[in-house]
Amino acid sequence: MLAFSDAFFAIAMTLLVVGIEVPDLTAGDSVGELAEVLNDDLGSFISFVISFAVIGRYWVAHHSFCARLAAVDGGLIGLNLVYLMFIAFLPFPTGLLGNYFENPLSVVVYAGAVAAVSGMEVVLFGHAQRRGLFEHPPPKDVYRWGVRLSLSPVIFFVLSIPLAFVSTTLAVLSWLLAIPYQLFEARKKPAHADEYL
Amino acid sequence: MLAFSDAFFAIAMTLLVVGIEVPDLTAGDSVGELAEVLNDDLGSFISFVISFAVIGRYWVAHHSFCARLAAVDGGLIGLNLVYLMFIAFLPFPTGLLGNYFENPLSVVVYAGAVAAVSGMEVVLFGHAQRRGLFEHPPPKDVYRWGVRLSLSPVIFFVLSIPLAFVSTTLAVLSWLLAIPYQLFEARKKPAHADEYL
Amino acid sequence: MLAFSDAFFAIAMTLLVVGIEVPDLTAGDSVGELAEVLNDDLGSFISFVISFAVIGRYWVAHHSFCARLAAVDGGLIGLNLVYLMFIAFLPFPTGLLGNYFENPLSVVVYAGAVAAVSGMEVVLFGHAQRRGLFEHPPPKDVYRWGVRLSLSPVIFFVLSIPLAFVSTTLAVLSWLLAIPYQLFEARKKPAHADEYL
Amino acid sequence: MLAFSDAFFAIAMTLLVVGIEVPDLTAGDSVGELAEVLNDDLGSFISFVISFAVIGRYWVAHHSFCARLAAVDGGLIGLNLVYLMFIAFLPFPTGLLGNYFENPLSVVVYAGAVAAVSGMEVVLFGHAQRRGLFEHPPPKDVYRWGVRLSLSPVIFFVLSIPLAFVSTTLAVLSWLLAIPYQLFEARKKPAHADEYL
Repeated sequence: MLAFSDAFFAIAMTLLVVGIEVPDLTAGDSVGELAEVLNDDLGSFISFVISFAVIGRYWVAHHSFCARLAAVDGGLIGLNLVYLMFIAFLPFPTGLLGNYFENPLSVVVYAGAVAAVSGMEVVLFGHAQRRGLFEHPPPKDVYRWGVRLSLSPVIFFVLSIPLAFVSTTLAVLSWLLAIPYQLFEARKKPAHADEYL
Repeated sequence: MLAFSDAFFAIAMTLLVVGIEVPDLTAGDSVGELAEVLNDDLGSFISFVISFAVIGRYWVAHHSFCARLAAVDGGLIGLNLVYLMFIAFLPFPTGLLGNYFENPLSVVVYAGAVAAVSGMEVVLFGHAQRRGLFEHPPPKDVYRWGVRLSLSPVIFFVLSIPLAFVSTTLAVLSWLLAIPYQLFEARKKPAHADEYL
Repeated sequence: MLAFSDAFFAIAMTLLVVGIEVPDLTAGDSVGELAEVLNDDLGSFISFVISFAVIGRYWVAHHSFCARLAAVDGGLIGLNLVYLMFIAFLPFPTGLLGNYFENPLSVVVYAGAVAAVSGMEVVLFGHAQRRGLFEHPPPKDVYRWGVRLSLSPVIFFVLSIPLAFVSTTLAVLSWLLAIPYQLFEARKKPAHADEYL
Repeated sequence: MLAFSDAFFAIAMTLLVVGIEVPDLTAGDSVGELAEVLNDDLGSFISFVISFAVIGRYWVAHHSFCARLAAVDGGLIGLNLVYLMFIAFLPFPTGLLGNYFENPLSVVVYAGAVAAVSGMEVVLFGHAQRRGLFEHPPPKDVYRWGVRLSLSPVIFFVLSIPLAFVSTTLAVLSWLLAIPYQLFEARKKPAHADEYL
C-alpha cells in the first residue's frame, strides 16, 4: 500500500504543472507581451507552489503513517482509496485557484478539498488505532495529540472560507498561520510520542 | 508484474482529474458565475468519483490476484497487458460520461469499457488456474465462485445498456445494485475459500 | 534502472489515452451525433491500440533485458535514457496518426519513431554484450539471432514508409506482418538460446 | 525517498511530450501542410530533447546522491521536496521555450528554472554533508570539487541570460558549452573521489 500511495502522490504533484497553461501570444518574440502574460499567470504559479507544499506535507505524514503499520485490513485499503481520491482531485481546485485567484468560490473549493484530505487523515489514523494495526500502538495521550495535529489545518482552512468573501488574498495568507500553529502544537508533544509517531 | 500494474492503476486513477476541465469564466471574480459553471460540471464530478471507485475496486482485486501467483508465464504477461489497456482506456469513457451525462451512448460506452475490464479479469483468472500459476491452486468450487463474483458486475453493466435509452440517471444508479449483489454472492462463499483467494 | 524504466513505460502507456480527445457536441444528448463523432474518432482508437501493443511489446523485451544484466555502467544508463526518450516521445506520433490517419506523413513519422526505438534496443543489447554486463553473456550465434529479432520490426516499419504514399491503411496493415515474421524468426532460435535470453 | 524521487523524474520526463501539441490541419490528408506544421514545431522538438537530456542528467546525479546516503532527516526530506518542485515545474518552461523559441524571455525563464535545480542540488549536497548523512562522508577537497561540478551548469545558464537578448539560438547553444566544461572539471577530480561520489 506504501508504494502504491507514494506513486499516487508523485503523480498528483507532477500533474499540478499541467494546470499552468503555456500562454498564447500574438507576437511570439515580444518580451513585453510574454512578461505581461506571465505576470497575469502569477496566480497559477502561487497555486502551484501552495499545492505542491500542501500535497508534499500530506505525503510526509502519510508515508510515515504507512511505515508505522504492522498490518493492513480491507477497511484500511478502502479508506486509503477515499483518501487518495481527494489527493488525486487536488489538481482541479489548484487549477481553479490559479485561474480565478480573486474569486472567493475558488478559495472555498480549495479550502474544502484540503480540509477533506485532513479529515480523511484523521479517519485513517483512527481506524488503524481502533483495529490495532500499528506496530507500536500509541497510548491515549499520544493518539489524541496526533489527532489534534492532523485536525489543526482543517480549522484554518474552514476559518478561511468566510474570510475569502472579504479578501481572497487574506484568506490564502491565513492558511500560512497553520504553520506556526503546528509548531506550537508540536511543542506540546507528549514526552514519549517519538516512540510511536 | 505487480509493481508495473500498480503504477498503471495509480496513473490511470490520477489522470481521471485531467478530464475535469477548469471552466472559462467571463467575469473571473463572479461567485455566481463560477457556482453555476461548477454546477454544470456536476456530471464530471460524479464520473470522477464513479471511475475512481471502479478502478480502485479493480486495483484491489488485481493486486490480490498478482500476490497469489507463484509464477508468471508469457501468456499471462500478454493477457495482463490487454487487461491494463482497458484500465488505461477508462479515463476516456469517464470524460465522455462527465461531459455528456444525459447521452445514452456515453453510458453505453462506459458500461462496455467496464464490462471489458471485468471480462479480462475472468480471462486472467482462468489462465492462471489452467496453467497452474497460483501458489495454492483453488479447488473447483472456489474457482467457480470466484469467476461468478468477477462476472457479476458485467451483468449489471450490460443490463444498464438498454436502461440508458430510458434514463441515463437510472442506468448509472443501476450500477450501484452491483454492490448489494456482490455482498449477497460473498455470503455464498465456500467455507475454505479464504485459504485460496 | 529496472524500476525507473518500468515507471516510464507505465506512464507512456497510460498517457496514450490523453491523445483521444473527448469530442465537442452541439447537442449533448444526441445519440446520433455522438455516434458519428466517435466513428470519426476511429483512427484515434486504432492508434491507441497499436501504440499500446507496440510499447507493451518493447516493455516485455526491455524488462527481460534489464533482468538479465549483472551490472550497469554509465554508458548503459546514458543509452537507456536515449531509448526511454524515444519511448516517451511515442504519444506524439500516436496522436498524429490518430488525428490524421490518411496522411502519409503521419505514418512516416510514426514508423520512424518506432524504428528508432528498435534501433536503440539493438544499441543497448550491443553495449551490454561488448562491456560484458550480462550475467550469462550469450554466445555469438545467440547474440546474432537476438539482434536479428530486434531488427526485424525495423525492416517492416521502414518498408511501410513508401507504401504509406500509396495507401496509409495498407502501410499500417503491413506492420502486422512483423508478427508472423517474428514467429518465423523465433523458430530459428538456437537450441541453447533459452539459457541466455 | 529514492523510489519516490525516481517516480517523480519518470513522470516529469514523460509529461514533456504533452507540451508538443498535435497540430490542427485544414486538409487532414495533405502531406505538404503537415510537413510545414511539423517544421514550425521544430522548437518544440528541440526543447523536448534538451529538457529530456537536462532532467535525465539531474536524475543520474540525484539517484547516485540518494544511493550514497546512510540516513535521511526531516530537513533533507523538506529540501528534497523543494528540489522536486523545480523538477516538476520544468515542463512549463519547456513548453514556453518550445512555443516561443525566439523570445528572449522564454530562454531566461528556462535558464532560471534549470539554474534553480542546480542550486537546490548544491543545497541538498551541503545539508547531507553538514548533518553527516552520507555513508562515507567525502573529505573537504572531494566535497568542494563536487559542489563546483554541480554549480558549473548554473554559470552557463546564468551567462546565457544576457546572451538571449542578442540571439536566443546562441543562448541555447551556449548551454552546450556546459558539457565540455564539465568534462574539463571532471579531469581535475581528486584521486580518491571515486570512493565517495
